[in-house]
Amino acid sequence: MELLFLGTGAGMPSKQRNTTSIVVNLVEERGTYWLIDCGEATQHQLLYTSLKPRRIEKIFITHMHGDHIYGLPGLLGSRSFLGGTEKLTVYGPRGIEEYIRLSLKLSRTHLTYPLEIIEIEPGVVFEDTEFRVLTERLDHVIPCYGFRIEQNDQPGTLLMEKVRELHVPRGPLLGRLKAGEDIVLEDGRVVKSGDVTSQPKPGFTVTVLGDTRFTESSIALAKEADIVVHEATFDDTGKKMAQDYGHSTFRQAAQVANEAQAKHLIVTHISARFTNENEPSLLAELKESGCPSFIASDFMHYKLLRDGSIESFTTSPK
Amino acid sequence: MELLFLGTGAGMPSKQRNTTSIVVNLVEERGTYWLIDCGEATQHQLLYTSLKPRRIEKIFITHMHGDHIYGLPGLLGSRSFLGGTEKLTVYGPRGIEEYIRLSLKLSRTHLTYPLEIIEIEPGVVFEDTEFRVLTERLDHVIPCYGFRIEQNDQPGTLLMEKVRELHVPRGPLLGRLKAGEDIVLEDGRVVKSGDVTSQPKPGFTVTVLGDTRFTESSIALAKEADIVVHEATFDDTGKKMAQDYGHSTFRQAAQVANEAQAKHLIVTHISARFTNENEPSLLAELKESGCPSFIASDFMHYKLLRDGSIESFTTSPK
Repeated sequence: MELLFLGTGAGMPSKQRNTTSIVVNLVEERGTYWLIDCGEATQHQLLYTSLKPRRIEKIFITHMHGDHIYGLPGLLGSRSFLGGTEKLTVYGPRGIEEYIRLSLKLSRTHLTYPLEIIEIEPGVVFEDTEFRVLTERLDHVIPCYGFRIEQNDQPGTLLMEKVRELHVPRGPLLGRLKAGEDIVLEDGRVVKSGDVTSQPKPGFTVTVLGDTRFTESSIALAKEADIVVHEATFDDTGKKMAQDYGHSTFRQAAQVANEAQAKHLIVTHISARFTNENEPSLLAELKESGCPSFIASDFMHYKLLRDGSIESFTTSPK
Repeated sequence: MELLFLGTGAGMPSKQRNTTSIVVNLVEERGTYWLIDCGEATQHQLLYTSLKPRRIEKIFITHMHGDHIYGLPGLLGSRSFLGGTEKLTVYGPRGIEEYIRLSLKLSRTHLTYPLEIIEIEPGVVFEDTEFRVLTERLDHVIPCYGFRIEQNDQPGTLLMEKVRELHVPRGPLLGRLKAGEDIVLEDGRVVKSGDVTSQPKPGFTVTVLGDTRFTESSIALAKEADIVVHEATFDDTGKKMAQDYGHSTFRQAAQVANEAQAKHLIVTHISARFTNENEPSLLAELKESGCPSFIASDFMHYKLLRDGSIESFTTSPK
């Protein structure tokens, strides 16, 4: 699992930061990408990555502000134009279906793939055998959601060398061992699954929160997450503005990560007021997160490694 | 008057060409800019120019395809955010009002300026003392329009040296002379306007056509225009595709300019199939325009000089 930030700005695009969109790269896990939010020119940003629109499987929208949704009609149309045929599902607040359907209808855009649009309520919005996505309402000036993506623990893999040593025959018995079942061979010997499989791999949890003031729901969604992505539109000097406009400060984002005991914090939705020169003081405000903390920029990748640490790198074309 | 191309691609953005938008720079004439079309990320392109969104006075939309309208909600919102207070008028086909109003409403975008939206019919869509804008239906797969912008001839300016020689007193008499009226002085002498004013300056005509097959309406709109901007989505080898998809070839664009006896041709809406290497053969197809002809690229400026010629230059950041 890797997060790739396509847009890390607040409100309007700037030369440095596009409006919000984050890729959850699940190519290793399920061969697809998920997007969180889709600000204007998200499809333009994708041109500078190796990501193909047809491999986007799900798009989660945190709220209906333009800097989080205006890229949807264009991306959906281009996904079609570029040969997408697999179903795409968009999850978002009430109004998202009307916005998408009407934009496509009035622009006479005919999609070559099934488009499902699900208007969300707090709770589980998606679940299959491997993943579960939960959402809760946050505290912004309009209805806004955060998403907690949980991967189930992954069963251990079969240690073929050990299986061979014990002369377990090829076939369905191997599948049962892999699935965690102990088996009895024809000669009466018992083979324990735990003896011939590697340790189960713990699943990951990544939480991406939409625009919000400091709120308990954020902490609940981020509880012990491997990564929490939180907005940080203002610094300490803008605390009142953050409150008035339904946003957070860097320090408040850090508090959420701290109280949730999250393992990594990435802040995004950064105002164009802040430049590289502000970075040291902004990072200082993140210190009380109690975990490794990062300020995202466009085209930054954060890869969650097997040992639970993060590897970060940029593919910015600039 | 200067044309600035913000997007010169067809259908989808590429790294080289954004989707369609053209600035008609009327700062010298009326202190404002007009836009023709507003594809996604037009506001992003504006970041690389000196143009301020609040000085955009009018936006003309040729048709409802996404690559010509998806940038509207974002640009309108940012114009507000950046302090725009002057009225903005959008002219476009049926559906444009619903698209804009609904996008703004669902994204909770509140504008700080009056927004007027006019759904157009063939004929005069705007007229004041200096400018007139005419539109006609073209021949695309959905309703599509072209715009002919006509500036009236500009009256000559008062030649102050001559006025002083003739001892015309300061005051309203000067205004009447400037307006073309002959006057009688107190001492009975007649002063002819033509003797104390410079030659009237002929107004310009610039025609910008939307997506279209070769059609007579284009020729009518482009009649003797100083500049005609015509789409050219295909080369000669794609003539059948152009017909099928409601587009034109480079050669057909040239034919329109030729039959209209236009003075300059600029082609745009260039497919991503074509690269710099194709330019010589594409320019060859433009030869039968019988006038100086250009293939637009993003951030190219074409300034119409007083002598009727064109000065072109680029401000591309790449």
